[in-house]
Amino acid sequence: MKLPITRGPRERRVPEGDDKPRLVCPECSYVAYENPKIVVGSVVTSDDGRVLLVRRAIEPRRGFWTLPAGYLELGESPEHGAMREAREEACAEIALDGLLAVYSITHISQVQLFYRARMVREECAPGIESLEVRLFAWDEIPWAELAFPTVHWALGHFDAARGRALGQPFGNVEGGPPDPVG
Amino acid sequence: MKLPITRGPRERRVPEGDDKPRLVCPECSYVAYENPKIVVGSVVTSDDGRVLLVRRAIEPRRGFWTLPAGYLELGESPEHGAMREAREEACAEIALDGLLAVYSITHISQVQLFYRARMVREECAPGIESLEVRLFAWDEIPWAELAFPTVHWALGHFDAARGRALGQPFGNVEGGPPDPVG
Repeated sequence: MKLPITRGPRERRVPEGDDKPRLVCPECSYVAYENPKIVVGSVVTSDDGRVLLVRRAIEPRRGFWTLPAGYLELGESPEHGAMREAREEACAEIALDGLLAVYSITHISQVQLFYRARMVREECAPGIESLEVRLFAWDEIPWAELAFPTVHWALGHFDAARGRALGQPFGNVEGGPPDPVG
Repeated sequence: MKLPITRGPRERRVPEGDDKPRLVCPECSYVAYENPKIVVGSVVTSDDGRVLLVRRAIEPRRGFWTLPAGYLELGESPEHGAMREAREEACAEIALDGLLAVYSITHISQVQLFYRARMVREECAPGIESLEVRLFAWDEIPWAELAFPTVHWALGHFDAARGRALGQPFGNVEGGPPDPVG
Protein backbone atom coordinates (compact mmCIF):
# COMPACT_ATOMS: atom_id res chain seq x y z
CA MET A 1 0.00 0.00 0.00
CA LYS A 2 1.47 3.33 -1.07
CA LEU A 3 -0.36 6.56 -0.36
CA PRO A 4 0.34 9.90 -2.10
CA ILE A 5 3.53 11.72 -1.20
CA THR A 6 3.23 14.09 1.71
CA ARG A 7 5.28 17.17 0.94
CA GLY A 8 4.60 18.66 4.33
CA PRO A 9 6.92 19.60 7.18
CA ARG A 10 10.51 18.83 6.24
CA GLU A 11 12.54 21.93 7.11
CA ARG A 12 13.85 22.49 10.62
CA ARG A 13 13.69 26.12 11.84
CA VAL A 14 12.42 28.30 14.69
CA PRO A 15 8.88 29.46 13.79
CA GLU A 16 7.97 33.09 14.45
CA GLY A 17 6.99 33.61 18.09
CA ASP A 18 8.54 30.31 19.17
CA ASP A 19 11.87 29.66 20.90
CA LYS A 20 12.67 26.12 19.66
CA PRO A 21 13.50 24.69 16.22
CA ARG A 22 10.51 22.80 14.78
CA LEU A 23 9.79 20.76 11.67
CA VAL A 24 8.08 23.22 9.30
CA CYS A 25 6.50 22.90 5.84
CA PRO A 26 8.32 25.33 3.52
CA GLU A 27 5.25 25.64 1.27
CA CYS A 28 2.58 26.47 3.86
CA SER A 29 4.50 27.06 7.14
CA TYR A 30 2.56 24.30 8.93
CA VAL A 31 4.50 23.23 12.03
CA ALA A 32 4.75 19.54 12.97
CA TYR A 33 5.40 19.68 16.70
CA GLU A 34 7.39 16.79 18.14
CA ASN A 35 6.49 15.93 21.70
CA PRO A 36 7.19 13.20 24.25
CA LYS A 37 5.60 9.84 23.56
CA ILE A 38 3.36 7.87 25.89
CA VAL A 39 4.17 4.24 26.68
CA VAL A 40 1.37 2.20 28.23
CA GLY A 41 1.80 -1.17 29.89
CA SER A 42 0.62 -3.35 32.71
CA VAL A 43 1.60 -5.72 35.47
CA VAL A 44 -0.80 -8.59 34.78
CA THR A 45 -1.50 -11.47 37.15
CA SER A 46 -3.30 -14.79 36.75
CA ASP A 47 -5.87 -16.02 39.30
CA ASP A 48 -3.14 -17.74 41.32
CA GLY A 49 -1.07 -14.53 41.48
CA ARG A 50 1.63 -15.32 38.94
CA VAL A 51 2.95 -12.41 36.85
CA LEU A 52 2.81 -12.34 33.04
CA LEU A 53 6.11 -11.58 31.32
CA VAL A 54 7.06 -11.71 27.65
CA ARG A 55 10.50 -12.37 26.19
CA ARG A 56 11.40 -9.80 23.54
CA ALA A 57 11.79 -10.95 19.93
CA ILE A 58 12.97 -7.50 18.81
CA GLU A 59 15.72 -5.04 19.59
CA PRO A 60 16.52 -3.33 21.86
CA ARG A 61 17.11 -6.01 24.51
CA ARG A 62 16.07 -8.98 22.36
CA GLY A 63 15.83 -12.13 24.51
CA PHE A 64 15.18 -10.25 27.75
CA TRP A 65 11.92 -10.36 29.70
CA THR A 66 9.55 -7.43 29.86
CA LEU A 67 5.99 -6.45 30.78
CA PRO A 68 3.44 -6.11 27.98
CA ALA A 69 3.89 -2.44 27.04
CA GLY A 70 4.33 -0.17 24.05
CA TYR A 71 3.53 3.16 22.43
CA LEU A 72 0.04 4.59 22.69
CA GLU A 73 -1.53 5.00 19.23
CA LEU A 74 -3.44 8.00 17.85
CA GLY A 75 -7.10 7.97 18.88
CA GLU A 76 -6.54 5.48 21.68
CA SER A 77 -7.02 5.93 25.44
CA PRO A 78 -4.16 4.78 27.70
CA GLU A 79 -6.43 2.07 29.14
CA HIS A 80 -7.27 0.68 25.70
CA GLY A 81 -3.62 0.92 24.70
CA ALA A 82 -2.52 -1.17 27.68
CA MET A 83 -5.14 -3.80 26.85
CA ARG A 84 -4.09 -3.82 23.17
CA GLU A 85 -0.43 -4.31 24.07
CA ALA A 86 -1.27 -7.33 26.26
CA ARG A 87 -3.25 -8.74 23.35
CA GLU A 88 -0.53 -8.06 20.77
CA GLU A 89 2.48 -9.20 22.77
CA ALA A 90 1.00 -11.98 24.89
CA CYS A 91 -2.35 -12.85 23.25
CA ALA A 92 -3.84 -12.11 26.67
CA GLU A 93 -7.20 -10.55 27.45
CA ILE A 94 -6.85 -8.41 30.55
CA ALA A 95 -9.04 -6.32 32.86
CA LEU A 96 -7.44 -3.21 34.37
CA ASP A 97 -7.61 -2.62 38.09
CA GLY A 98 -6.13 0.89 38.16
CA LEU A 99 -3.15 3.10 37.41
CA LEU A 100 -0.12 1.73 39.26
CA ALA A 101 2.59 4.21 38.26
CA VAL A 102 3.57 7.15 36.06
CA TYR A 103 7.26 7.28 35.12
CA SER A 104 8.93 10.02 33.11
CA ILE A 105 12.07 9.15 31.22
CA THR A 106 13.19 12.56 30.07
CA HIS A 107 16.38 11.63 28.18
CA ILE A 108 14.29 9.67 25.69
CA SER A 109 11.17 11.88 26.04
CA GLN A 110 8.81 9.17 27.26
CA VAL A 111 6.04 9.20 29.83
CA GLN A 112 5.14 5.65 30.85
CA LEU A 113 1.79 4.73 32.39
CA PHE A 114 1.65 1.29 34.04
CA TYR A 115 -1.63 -0.29 35.11
CA ARG A 116 -2.33 -3.18 37.50
CA ALA A 117 -4.38 -5.82 35.68
CA ARG A 118 -5.56 -9.42 35.81
CA MET A 119 -6.07 -12.01 33.11
CA VAL A 120 -9.68 -12.44 32.07
CA ARG A 121 -8.89 -16.03 30.94
CA GLU A 122 -5.79 -18.01 31.80
CA GLU A 123 -4.64 -18.11 28.19
CA CYS A 124 -1.57 -16.53 26.67
CA ALA A 125 0.81 -17.11 23.77
CA PRO A 126 3.70 -15.22 22.17
CA GLY A 127 2.69 -12.40 19.84
CA ILE A 128 4.75 -11.36 16.81
CA GLU A 129 7.14 -9.28 18.94
CA SER A 130 7.65 -11.99 21.58
CA LEU A 131 9.80 -15.14 21.65
CA GLU A 132 8.02 -16.57 24.67
CA VAL A 133 5.31 -15.75 27.20
CA ARG A 134 5.29 -17.09 30.75
CA LEU A 135 3.51 -16.73 34.06
CA PHE A 136 6.10 -16.38 36.82
CA ALA A 137 5.57 -16.98 40.53
CA TRP A 138 7.09 -14.02 42.41
CA ASP A 139 10.20 -15.97 43.48
CA GLU A 140 10.76 -17.23 39.93
CA ILE A 141 10.96 -13.76 38.30
CA PRO A 142 14.21 -13.55 36.28
CA TRP A 143 15.38 -10.25 37.80
CA ALA A 144 18.77 -10.39 36.06
CA GLU A 145 17.13 -10.90 32.68
CA LEU A 146 14.61 -8.05 32.75
CA ALA A 147 14.80 -5.81 29.70
CA PHE A 148 14.53 -2.33 31.23
CA PRO A 149 14.82 -0.55 34.61
CA THR A 150 11.19 0.57 34.43
CA VAL A 151 10.17 -3.12 34.35
CA HIS A 152 12.00 -3.48 37.70
CA TRP A 153 10.28 -0.32 38.96
CA ALA A 154 6.79 -1.42 37.95
CA LEU A 155 7.24 -4.90 39.47
CA GLY A 156 8.59 -3.35 42.67
CA HIS A 157 5.66 -0.94 42.89
CA PHE A 158 3.23 -3.76 42.15
CA ASP A 159 4.73 -5.67 45.08
CA ALA A 160 4.60 -2.60 47.35
CA ALA A 161 0.87 -2.14 46.59
CA ARG A 162 -0.12 -5.79 47.13
CA GLY A 163 -3.40 -6.33 48.91
CA ARG A 164 -4.44 -2.70 48.84
CA ALA A 165 -6.40 -0.40 46.59
CA LEU A 166 -4.33 1.84 44.34
CA GLY A 167 -4.32 5.57 45.03
CA GLN A 168 -5.94 6.96 41.92
CA PRO A 169 -5.95 10.32 40.22
CA PHE A 170 -9.37 11.34 38.91
CA GLY A 171 -10.26 10.38 35.32
CA ASN A 172 -12.65 11.38 32.55
CA VAL A 173 -16.06 12.64 33.59
CA GLU A 174 -18.84 10.52 32.07
CA GLY A 175 -21.02 12.29 29.57
CA GLY A 176 -18.86 15.37 29.36
CA PRO A 177 -17.86 16.57 25.90
CA PRO A 178 -14.04 16.44 26.13
CA ASP A 179 -12.04 19.04 24.31
CA PRO A 180 -8.47 20.29 23.77
CA VAL A 181 -6.54 22.54 26.09
CA GLY A 182 -4.42 24.73 23.83
CA MET B 1 17.18 31.12 12.09
CA LYS B 2 17.02 28.59 9.28
CA LEU B 3 18.54 25.15 9.69
CA PRO B 4 19.35 22.73 6.85
CA ILE B 5 16.46 21.12 5.01
CA THR B 6 15.31 17.84 6.48
CA ARG B 7 14.48 15.50 3.63
CA GLY B 8 13.25 12.83 6.02
CA PRO B 9 9.84 11.20 6.44
CA ARG B 10 7.37 12.71 3.96
CA GLU B 11 5.60 9.76 2.31
CA ARG B 12 2.56 8.15 3.93
CA ARG B 13 2.41 4.34 3.61
CA VAL B 14 2.06 1.15 5.67
CA PRO B 15 5.57 -0.03 6.63
CA GLU B 16 6.35 -3.74 6.34
CA GLY B 17 5.11 -5.64 9.38
CA ASP B 18 2.87 -2.78 10.48
CA ASP B 19 -0.90 -2.39 10.08
CA LYS B 20 -1.24 1.41 9.97
CA PRO B 21 -0.11 4.07 7.47
CA ARG B 22 2.92 5.98 8.81
CA LEU B 23 5.07 8.90 7.65
CA VAL B 24 8.10 7.24 6.01
CA CYS B 25 11.33 8.58 4.51
CA PRO B 26 11.47 7.40 0.87
CA GLU B 27 15.31 7.54 0.87
CA CYS B 28 16.06 5.52 4.03
CA SER B 29 12.69 4.04 5.11
CA TYR B 30 12.90 5.71 8.53
CA VAL B 31 9.42 5.83 10.08
CA ALA B 32 8.26 8.95 11.94
CA TYR B 33 5.58 7.58 14.28
CA GLU B 34 2.82 9.98 15.22
CA ASN B 35 1.40 9.41 18.68
CA PRO B 36 -0.94 11.12 21.12
CA LYS B 37 0.35 14.27 22.75
CA ILE B 38 0.58 14.99 26.45
CA VAL B 39 -0.95 18.16 27.87
CA VAL B 40 0.18 19.18 31.36
CA GLY B 41 -1.53 21.72 33.53
CA SER B 42 -2.44 22.60 37.08
CA VAL B 43 -5.09 23.91 39.40
CA VAL B 44 -3.11 26.53 41.31
CA THR B 45 -4.24 28.25 44.49
CA SER B 46 -2.95 31.24 46.42
CA ASP B 47 -2.47 31.14 50.21
CA ASP B 48 -6.03 32.34 50.76
CA GLY B 49 -7.44 29.57 48.54
CA ARG B 50 -8.26 31.54 45.41
CA VAL B 51 -7.78 29.75 42.06
CA LEU B 52 -5.48 31.04 39.31
CA LEU B 53 -7.08 31.35 35.88
CA VAL B 54 -5.77 32.90 32.67
CA ARG B 55 -7.80 34.46 29.86
CA ARG B 56 -6.70 33.15 26.48
CA ALA B 57 -5.08 35.56 24.01
CA ILE B 58 -4.99 32.91 21.26
CA GLU B 59 -7.39 30.68 19.37
CA PRO B 60 -9.13 28.38 19.98
CA ARG B 61 -11.45 29.97 22.54
CA ARG B 62 -9.74 33.37 22.63
CA GLY B 63 -11.12 35.47 25.48
CA PHE B 64 -12.24 32.49 27.56
CA TRP B 65 -10.74 31.49 30.90
CA THR B 66 -8.54 28.45 31.33
CA LEU B 67 -6.07 26.80 33.70
CA PRO B 68 -2.35 27.20 32.99
CA ALA B 69 -1.72 24.18 30.71
CA GLY B 70 -0.10 23.22 27.45
CA TYR B 71 1.87 20.64 25.51
CA LEU B 72 4.72 18.80 27.18
CA GLU B 73 8.02 19.47 25.38
CA LEU B 74 10.72 16.98 24.38
CA GLY B 75 13.11 16.19 27.25
CA GLU B 76 10.73 17.55 29.89
CA SER B 77 9.04 15.73 32.77
CA PRO B 78 5.28 16.32 33.21
CA GLU B 79 5.97 18.03 36.55
CA HIS B 80 8.46 20.46 34.99
CA GLY B 81 6.10 21.02 32.07
CA ALA B 82 3.25 22.02 34.38
CA MET B 83 5.54 24.44 36.23
CA ARG B 84 6.79 25.90 32.92
CA GLU B 85 3.24 26.47 31.66
CA ALA B 86 2.31 28.37 34.86
CA ARG B 87 5.42 30.50 34.36
CA GLU B 88 4.76 31.12 30.64
CA GLU B 89 1.04 31.82 30.81
CA ALA B 90 0.69 33.44 34.22
CA CYS B 91 4.25 34.45 35.24
CA ALA B 92 3.60 32.35 38.34
CA GLU B 93 6.06 30.22 40.29
CA ILE B 94 4.24 27.17 41.60
CA ALA B 95 4.95 24.15 43.79
CA LEU B 96 3.16 20.91 42.87
CA ASP B 97 1.24 19.01 45.50
CA GLY B 98 0.41 15.90 43.44
CA LEU B 99 -1.31 14.49 40.37
CA LEU B 100 -4.99 15.45 40.50
CA ALA B 101 -6.31 13.83 37.32
CA VAL B 102 -5.50 12.03 34.08
CA TYR B 103 -7.93 12.68 31.22
CA SER B 104 -7.81 11.07 27.81
CA ILE B 105 -9.38 12.94 24.93
CA THR B 106 -9.22 10.33 22.21
CA HIS B 107 -10.84 12.25 19.34
CA ILE B 108 -7.94 14.71 19.41
CA SER B 109 -5.35 12.17 20.64
CA GLN B 110 -4.46 13.95 23.86
CA VAL B 111 -3.68 12.67 27.33
CA GLN B 112 -3.97 15.48 29.88
CA LEU B 113 -2.25 15.38 33.26
CA PHE B 114 -3.48 17.95 35.80
CA TYR B 115 -1.63 18.65 39.03
CA ARG B 116 -2.77 20.35 42.21
CA ALA B 117 -0.40 23.22 43.03
CA ARG B 118 0.06 26.35 45.10
CA MET B 119 1.72 29.66 44.32
CA VAL B 120 5.19 30.02 45.80
CA ARG B 121 4.75 33.82 45.82
CA GLU B 122 1.53 35.73 45.37
CA GLU B 123 2.65 37.26 42.08
CA CYS B 124 1.23 36.71 38.65
CA ALA B 125 0.91 38.57 35.34
CA PRO B 126 -0.32 37.75 31.83
CA GLY B 127 2.16 35.84 29.70
CA ILE B 128 2.35 36.22 25.90
CA GLU B 129 -0.55 33.81 25.34
CA SER B 130 -2.80 35.43 27.97
CA LEU B 131 -4.95 38.55 27.93
CA GLU B 132 -5.41 38.58 31.69
CA VAL B 133 -4.58 36.60 34.81
CA ARG B 134 -6.75 36.56 37.91
CA LEU B 135 -7.15 34.82 41.24
CA PHE B 136 -10.81 33.81 41.67
CA ALA B 137 -12.57 32.95 44.90
CA TRP B 138 -14.53 29.72 44.35
CA ASP B 139 -17.90 31.50 44.05
CA GLU B 140 -16.47 34.01 41.57
CA ILE B 141 -15.28 31.42 39.02
CA PRO B 142 -16.74 32.35 35.60
CA TRP B 143 -18.15 28.88 34.84
CA ALA B 144 -19.92 30.03 31.69
CA GLU B 145 -16.72 31.52 30.31
CA LEU B 146 -14.38 28.57 30.79
CA ALA B 147 -12.52 27.63 27.63
CA PHE B 148 -12.75 23.83 27.66
CA PRO B 149 -14.70 21.01 29.32
CA THR B 150 -11.52 19.60 30.87
CA VAL B 151 -11.10 22.92 32.73
CA HIS B 152 -14.54 22.25 34.27
CA TRP B 153 -13.51 18.68 35.06
CA ALA B 154 -10.21 19.65 36.70
CA LEU B 155 -11.87 22.37 38.81
CA GLY B 156 -14.62 19.94 39.84
CA HIS B 157 -12.08 17.30 40.81
CA PHE B 158 -10.01 19.89 42.69
CA ASP B 159 -13.14 20.76 44.66
CA ALA B 160 -13.96 17.09 45.30
CA ALA B 161 -10.47 16.50 46.71
CA ARG B 162 -10.41 19.56 48.99
CA GLY B 163 -8.82 19.02 52.38
CA ARG B 164 -7.51 15.55 51.63
CA ALA B 165 -4.34 14.01 50.25
CA LEU B 166 -4.48 13.00 46.61
CA GLY B 167 -4.43 9.31 45.79
CA GLN B 168 -1.17 8.94 43.93
CA PRO B 169 0.22 6.44 41.46
CA PHE B 170 3.86 5.56 42.08
CA GLY B 171 6.53 7.63 40.31
CA ASN B 172 10.18 7.45 39.28
CA VAL B 173 12.49 5.47 41.53
CA GLU B 174 15.37 7.65 42.74
CA GLY B 175 18.80 6.64 41.52
CA GLY B 176 17.48 4.13 39.02
CA PRO B 177 18.80 4.40 35.46
CA PRO B 178 15.59 4.91 33.50
CA ASP B 179 15.30 3.42 30.07
CA PRO B 180 12.85 2.87 27.17
CA VAL B 181 10.24 0.18 26.99
CA GLY B 182 10.06 -0.76 23.31
